[in-house]
Amino acid sequence: MADLLKTLRETLLMGPGPSMVSPAVYRAIAQPTIGHLDPAFIGLMDAVQEDLRSLLNTENTLTLPISGTGSAGMETCFVNLVEQGDRVLILSNGVFGTRMAEVAGRLGAEVDSMDFEWGAPVDTQQVAARLKEKKYDLIGVVHAETSTGVLNPVEQIGELARENGALYLVDSVTGLGGIPVKLDAWGVDAFYSGTQKCLSCPPGLSPVSFSARATEKLQSRKTKVPNWYLDLNLICGYWAGEPNSSDNKRAYHHTAPINMNYALYAALREIVNEGTDAVFERHLASHRQLVDGLEDRGLAMLVSAPHRLPMLNAVKIPQGVDEAAVRSILLNEHAIEIGAGLGPLAGKIWRIGLMGHTARAENVERLLAALDSAV
Amino acid sequence: MADLLKTLRETLLMGPGPSMVSPAVYRAIAQPTIGHLDPAFIGLMDAVQEDLRSLLNTENTLTLPISGTGSAGMETCFVNLVEQGDRVLILSNGVFGTRMAEVAGRLGAEVDSMDFEWGAPVDTQQVAARLKEKKYDLIGVVHAETSTGVLNPVEQIGELARENGALYLVDSVTGLGGIPVKLDAWGVDAFYSGTQKCLSCPPGLSPVSFSARATEKLQSRKTKVPNWYLDLNLICGYWAGEPNSSDNKRAYHHTAPINMNYALYAALREIVNEGTDAVFERHLASHRQLVDGLEDRGLAMLVSAPHRLPMLNAVKIPQGVDEAAVRSILLNEHAIEIGAGLGPLAGKIWRIGLMGHTARAENVERLLAALDSAV
Repeated sequence: MADLLKTLRETLLMGPGPSMVSPAVYRAIAQPTIGHLDPAFIGLMDAVQEDLRSLLNTENTLTLPISGTGSAGMETCFVNLVEQGDRVLILSNGVFGTRMAEVAGRLGAEVDSMDFEWGAPVDTQQVAARLKEKKYDLIGVVHAETSTGVLNPVEQIGELARENGALYLVDSVTGLGGIPVKLDAWGVDAFYSGTQKCLSCPPGLSPVSFSARATEKLQSRKTKVPNWYLDLNLICGYWAGEPNSSDNKRAYHHTAPINMNYALYAALREIVNEGTDAVFERHLASHRQLVDGLEDRGLAMLVSAPHRLPMLNAVKIPQGVDEAAVRSILLNEHAIEIGAGLGPLAGKIWRIGLMGHTARAENVERLLAALDSAV
Repeated sequence: MADLLKTLRETLLMGPGPSMVSPAVYRAIAQPTIGHLDPAFIGLMDAVQEDLRSLLNTENTLTLPISGTGSAGMETCFVNLVEQGDRVLILSNGVFGTRMAEVAGRLGAEVDSMDFEWGAPVDTQQVAARLKEKKYDLIGVVHAETSTGVLNPVEQIGELARENGALYLVDSVTGLGGIPVKLDAWGVDAFYSGTQKCLSCPPGLSPVSFSARATEKLQSRKTKVPNWYLDLNLICGYWAGEPNSSDNKRAYHHTAPINMNYALYAALREIVNEGTDAVFERHLASHRQLVDGLEDRGLAMLVSAPHRLPMLNAVKIPQGVDEAAVRSILLNEHAIEIGAGLGPLAGKIWRIGLMGHTARAENVERLLAALDSAV
């Protein structure tokens, strides 16, 4: 059998993730594996947690990467916080909002879903009206909807959630590292993200953070978390993310993905060293350059300007264009990956990612030139 | 902040996992990340599944790596196969048998646990007697108990499970790649393993395999799998491991850990290329060399000779020896990691791993010499 790894071709990743990975992160992931209880690894875990807290603008003790991809982070938040019969409200305007409702429903929650137009943000007035009528245990929303490129008003929703008394859960799989995330200022109680978007790290880990209120709910559950692998009570015994585990003793739970954590460590260090303001500005500049270039070519964006994400650009497919053929040409002839539409937007949009290391002027230029020859 | 990755020291990993990783696998994990729907990645997924089937001696279509560590594989098997009230029998003689009972109980199963002495194998006569009394939906056992170094009689238990009509679940996190695993011949219905033991790959993935009977149970569940991330009905839509998904179309579920799959691919290729007979013989030879060396030094094994695993060697700690101090000296002065005892065996044994790439004469010699100076 041929060695398939030798046939891999470096691809410019401009889809909805994974994004480009920097040389420093590739070097990190190939460092020698050491034991998951080795003091050197525990030091690295501490550093990862510290950098995550800084990037999330939070003091949350319980802040750590879950040993799975972004969807494992979603599962973690729901399975730890939701018990049978809990009232959950999901504000949904894309695939990942829909997925939240599905995950919560499987756990026996009483789920209400408010569905908004795909491509527009969640309407906070409608949410405010609903929250006057009914009290919820948890309200969930996606910060940066990867399926549409919409930025949702998470700060305003946070105020409404607080007034309602609900725990507030935010998905920022695609936002983290590309736009500001301010957990404490926004009153976010539970948060998850992924490594393969704006953190520019290969997929495989999911940063998660719980506020003191969420931690209290976790610790006062009536039933055990019905998922041993993702039980944060147990995981915190290893990561020492619990308020009362200050003695720094680590109890074995599962073997952490050592080399993935090396990669996450290096990816976080790169962002901290570049400076978050500079990183966010780089994302915005690439986004403006891309939108200008697309509009110059007569292409239109799905989302109206004030609600666009810089890192996920949904572009309407012009009439008569075979969208899949264009993606194939880009991939096969130009080694550039862009994404297709999902669900009701399948065949109607392309999704162009400008995430993390991908968000650079030369990459935007290369894509625009390739589009000129492919469309 | 100093770059912690620069302070990492290559360590000879002779604990209960992770094990040594070969240069080819380090090269693989640092290959350029590509998209999870890129045809080149799908080709690699197919190759991983084919090599896993070969190593597992199975025709099972549903054979794939779960995007989490070995414990995620355990969670996957139980959450997909067990429904509220199902009768589950766990045959337990160590930490990982105990964990099985815990995982099944959290899912609402009616769990019976037969507990056997830690350090001795499961007694099939007692199991046969129990199975005459009661019918079970699922019987679970650990093939290679990492906490004690015991090899359990999984083939004989398989016959008993078949007679009882129960599904048969086997954990071979530590066995796979070091001793023969014959799913079809042994009548195993559900199986999970991990990458960081005898596959000599960093931790982060868990190979799982389901027989046609297990797949049928999965497809005829009365309730949805209460875990979206690990729902094999959905995961098979991406990995195409289902009997009826022969059209090779892949539906996005979650973003697979791309680079971890590169590493697993390379690790499996190394085993196939060396030849499984040669690999198993290498484990046995290292094991004999280690046991001889330990016994020459007056040390005694926990497990009697016929029931010992070659890849996990439980050594009784001599009276008066500070076992933690010895492990510290080995790690700090000799850059060798060995493992401590768990649960009732804490402070009573060391666990010396000879897993995968670690199982080589020069490593055994280095450990024995280091022990001479440390004890």
